Amino acid sequence: MRLDLGYDGTEFSGWARQPGRRTVCGVLEDTMSTVLREDVTLTVAGRTDAGVHAAGQVAHADLPAAVDVSGLPRRLARALPADVRVFSARVVPFEFDARFSALRRHYEYRVTDAPFGALPLRRLDTLAWPRPLDVDALNAASELLLGERDFCAFCKRREGATTIRELQRLAWERDGDVLTAFVSADAFCHSMVRSLVGALLAVGEGRKPVPWPASLLSLTARSSEVTVAPAHGLSLVRVDYPEDSELAARALVTRNVRGAPTS
Amino acid sequence: MRLDLGYDGTEFSGWARQPGRRTVCGVLEDTMSTVLREDVTLTVAGRTDAGVHAAGQVAHADLPAAVDVSGLPRRLARALPADVRVFSARVVPFEFDARFSALRRHYEYRVTDAPFGALPLRRLDTLAWPRPLDVDALNAASELLLGERDFCAFCKRREGATTIRELQRLAWERDGDVLTAFVSADAFCHSMVRSLVGALLAVGEGRKPVPWPASLLSLTARSSEVTVAPAHGLSLVRVDYPEDSELAARALVTRNVRGAPTS
Repeated sequence: MRLDLGYDGTEFSGWARQPGRRTVCGVLEDTMSTVLREDVTLTVAGRTDAGVHAAGQVAHADLPAAVDVSGLPRRLARALPADVRVFSARVVPFEFDARFSALRRHYEYRVTDAPFGALPLRRLDTLAWPRPLDVDALNAASELLLGERDFCAFCKRREGATTIRELQRLAWERDGDVLTAFVSADAFCHSMVRSLVGALLAVGEGRKPVPWPASLLSLTARSSEVTVAPAHGLSLVRVDYPEDSELAARALVTRNVRGAPTS
Repeated sequence: MRLDLGYDGTEFSGWARQPGRRTVCGVLEDTMSTVLREDVTLTVAGRTDAGVHAAGQVAHADLPAAVDVSGLPRRLARALPADVRVFSARVVPFEFDARFSALRRHYEYRVTDAPFGALPLRRLDTLAWPRPLDVDALNAASELLLGERDFCAFCKRREGATTIRELQRLAWERDGDVLTAFVSADAFCHSMVRSLVGALLAVGEGRKPVPWPASLLSLTARSSEVTVAPAHGLSLVRVDYPEDSELAARALVTRNVRGAPTS
């Protein structure tokens, strides 16, 4: 079964289960197990960090065919806390794997340079930046980062995970006082989006020159000069998958050639 | 001085100061008095109830000319809690009165009929409605309420306040699963928008016929059949004022002819 879901990450210690912590996976698995009267184990497309939101997260669970999943979004809405919602639940081919079938993850990062800070009702998913940001400088620096590169300088190393990723989109748009970064890649290593955004904001406010973030791509270890931008500006907004007929082939490619995508 | 401001009403007991309660007016007056080192008393355009939000609230304060109000939004952002923000502060003609000069108040009410409820990051300002809503029925019933009428059936009576109001706009738009009601009037009596929305939702879900809300306009007291819709779907989004040259004349008209507008 494929689940499409979203959450306000504010009160969660991220996706992944941790003993004694309130996590999205923990709350969802526990609630679904109760509602479906069946043990549910979830595999997710993007293992978001503490405080990161999702509007288009995808997960899957293997369930016995006898389990009734009809009307599941409504049934779960009655049982789940209001900061997590399952938008749809549907049966998919056995080969569908939320993590290994994914072609591409899309994130957005919201930041405002309004003198008054973030709008009260958007403060949970918008970073307030205390100095003016230059959207042209942000875009010029972002463009230099596109393509298949080793993003080592922007990644917190995790055992066994490659840091070579294909950054397919990194573009900023300003709407009034709010700037949104649109970030897409085949996969992201740990803290990569927030590290890219952190480096770019230094350019946007004029503290670093436009070529600086791309110059870090030559490093072979994480850069201590890169500040990881705060979690609450970041949302996972969409995950792309191949057509059903291509699922099995895609999972093999991802597992064997690209290493484990981590988020 | 005129202030344009917004707040997330969730954690406030409404605008008006009440002993022992956290109110928008209380937090703002206290913080501004500290920051400006001058006692500040605010008069507001719309005295919103507990839980109601504002994206375009307007207030005024009379301050000695010597008080430095430059950069006030940024200075206040450092001192105010994140659920209230002053967007701009500027000197206006002495005749400007946030309450009595106002020509028109604009509210929006957000409700979703998605089976899964409200999006997690919009749950604070979106009512989750458990049954499908018909936007055409909502608009047909709304149109019958327009014009200058006695909205007695939809008002909680307050001493001395008229219930005759000119409802200038009441229209619904659907964007995916979310319906927004746009509601504009010269002024509103207490709980009027939420009572109108409550009555209309009964039509929208098919429980009451289209002419029903307008039929209540013939009542001479509050209708017990009308449910007041929850506060958290409602936001004050804009207040209109006349040109500076018309301010004094407008305040006289409002005070003497129309009675005290309450929200």
